[in-house]
Amino acid sequence: MSHALEILATHRRGPQVEANVLAACIDACLDCAQSCTACADASLAEPELEQLVACITLCLSCSDVCTSTSQALTRQTVFVLKLATAVVQACVEACRSCADECERHSHHHEHCRICAEVCRRCEQACNDVLAALT
Amino acid sequence: MSHALEILATHRRGPQVEANVLAACIDACLDCAQSCTACADASLAEPELEQLVACITLCLSCSDVCTSTSQALTRQTVFVLKLATAVVQACVEACRSCADECERHSHHHEHCRICAEVCRRCEQACNDVLAALT
Amino acid sequence: MSHALEILATHRRGPQVEANVLAACIDACLDCAQSCTACADASLAEPELEQLVACITLCLSCSDVCTSTSQALTRQTVFVLKLATAVVQACVEACRSCADECERHSHHHEHCRICAEVCRRCEQACNDVLAALT
Amino acid sequence: MSHALEILATHRRGPQVEANVLAACIDACLDCAQSCTACADASLAEPELEQLVACITLCLSCSDVCTSTSQALTRQTVFVLKLATAVVQACVEACRSCADECERHSHHHEHCRICAEVCRRCEQACNDVLAALT
Repeated sequence: MSHALEILATHRRGPQVEANVLAACIDACLDCAQSCTACADASLAEPELEQLVACITLCLSCSDVCTSTSQALTRQTVFVLKLATAVVQACVEACRSCADECERHSHHHEHCRICAEVCRRCEQACNDVLAALT
Repeated sequence: MSHALEILATHRRGPQVEANVLAACIDACLDCAQSCTACADASLAEPELEQLVACITLCLSCSDVCTSTSQALTRQTVFVLKLATAVVQACVEACRSCADECERHSHHHEHCRICAEVCRRCEQACNDVLAALT
Repeated sequence: MSHALEILATHRRGPQVEANVLAACIDACLDCAQSCTACADASLAEPELEQLVACITLCLSCSDVCTSTSQALTRQTVFVLKLATAVVQACVEACRSCADECERHSHHHEHCRICAEVCRRCEQACNDVLAALT
Repeated sequence: MSHALEILATHRRGPQVEANVLAACIDACLDCAQSCTACADASLAEPELEQLVACITLCLSCSDVCTSTSQALTRQTVFVLKLATAVVQACVEACRSCADECERHSHHHEHCRICAEVCRRCEQACNDVLAALT
């Protein structure tokens, strides 16, 4: 999706995690950050707005956490295992809580359905990184 | 690349700019934010680091500006023309200054070559949005 | 507020803009980013939520733009005048549009009153930087 | 420092954590995000740059994580304990790893000394939130 894998291949020290797993997670985080910002915004334009307050709040925090996770994972010049693990674990929680809430609205709002799917994919990609880290 | 176009299509009010142009710019910003973070990091691992100080600094600011631009452009529930224009113009300057510097190192560093290309594509996508806004 | 001024004083090349003006703007951006995130969140908990949709949307984008502006202004190792100018101009628009909207709700919502004041202070701090840049 | 405490006091639902502890952590995160961006930039201007590569890399990730933590903690309309805990734990790791590295350079670089102190204060503020969450 992004050029994450291509640029990782040019890094002198090489990634500390299997490059395909790492790049897949970075891309999933970028997609999830965007989808969550977009779902929060589309929710703000819905008439039954008050039912989407939890969805909007969790989307906003999921977006922020996914953005910082994609940036932290991209940095491979120095690698601190405990830091990488904690960052990705926080991202798992952000994606899971957001997906749980969006799924409750999937039948009524197409943006929630798409966003929930993107969050689940990101949660899985983060769990793949955690498995590769241990 | 991301699900930007798909979620924009579900927005009740519809985007204020042509959806394809908008989604292309959002995706280009996400890719550019990632490439710039990655190029700065790969540069930090190079032996001739002191020649890449400008590249690293401009990559970092380009990444930050591209991230905030992608988020601001994603929000279509309220649209303020002067705000959208100023944000995208700042992104054009960020991409241009970063591409100019990365191009100077393209022959020596593959990550700079890729990053410069991604920056130029984002600069163009931003200019396409500016053209669509007027 | 932050340690911006203190760390700027340790920079080998010194800031390209008068340090007090620069640090004041960085601090105003940090405060504004936080206030806008907080005002959007407090708005989501209000019963007359549907009247605050514009406020929430503009707060979110103002927060993002202020964060990237504080980061770009902090970087003084390389200074590109056109980039700094465009970034700060975008921040002026973000603060102005958010303050305009929050002021409309200042009498009903204390968080909007505070947020509007913080946005106006950041708008002024950005204009001070623009004056110092020319 | 910021208006975090003042705006939290206007929130209809009130914070889920003791307001003073929460606001202190939000402010510490904002200060730390700024100091880390500034220390990374000041390091890029140092002649013995190659000895500061770890410092720069860890500062950049600490800045990103502190920014997303300040935003996630600011949102009190919906509160998910597991999410808040994981986000703050990641911030503890980011601050600790950055402070450990900056302290190694504190005697040679004043920006590293200041940044290390700010990171330690943020680490402590995060631990105070974790204690308040349980």
